[in-house]
Amino acid sequence: MYVIEQTRPEPTPIPGVSHATWAGSAQGLEQLSLWRQSLAPGAATPAHSHDCDEVVICESGQGTVRIGDQNHAFGARSTLILRRDQLHQIINTGAEPLEILGVFGATPVNVFLADKQKLELPWCS
Amino acid sequence: MYVIEQTRPEPTPIPGVSHATWAGSAQGLEQLSLWRQSLAPGAATPAHSHDCDEVVICESGQGTVRIGDQNHAFGARSTLILRRDQLHQIINTGAEPLEILGVFGATPVNVFLADKQKLELPWCS
Repeated sequence: MYVIEQTRPEPTPIPGVSHATWAGSAQGLEQLSLWRQSLAPGAATPAHSHDCDEVVICESGQGTVRIGDQNHAFGARSTLILRRDQLHQIINTGAEPLEILGVFGATPVNVFLADKQKLELPWCS
Repeated sequence: MYVIEQTRPEPTPIPGVSHATWAGSAQGLEQLSLWRQSLAPGAATPAHSHDCDEVVICESGQGTVRIGDQNHAFGARSTLILRRDQLHQIINTGAEPLEILGVFGATPVNVFLADKQKLELPWCS
């Protein structure tokens, strides 16, 4: 299977966060996962980190990425660079959905909360 | 630098192929490269492979990915799954530019032609 369809993000147990896994170990990959997510206005991820590199492509909307005590605003045509183990939180600060593509240098993807506890994900990563 | 701008693909020495590196080792990453490319109508990459996983997100246009002696058509809302060492060629078969995002599980990215010769890239990968 070389060509697959991009599925629409579906609601998750995380309030305001919809998710679709576009590529990962289920497609036979060993080094990459791609997550397409939509955050409703006001929605936020928990503060978290990964033990792999992450790049986020913003497709539309307005958001901020909170790193330490700093907020970094971003929007359409922005790319976020989140190196391995960088604690970060993504927040939709706009009035429209925040549409993002998260790219990870591992599959499956491990997610750790601020206290280093591993988060069990409600989706196949 | 956590937030960077998505730059526009610029012409390369490969006919009809424009390129922008959106993320990679120059941004301090160790596991990921992202390439935004635009192929003019009729343009094609050489047949090539990488020693890492690749995922291609098609944003717009119509193309085919040639693998072995098979052509696999794709377009907007298609994702291509190209596992490590999979020889492939991407061709714009439509009348509009083929707009794609290539995601790689390594940085820099190595490119090998069909004869296994390493291709020296005209861009920072």
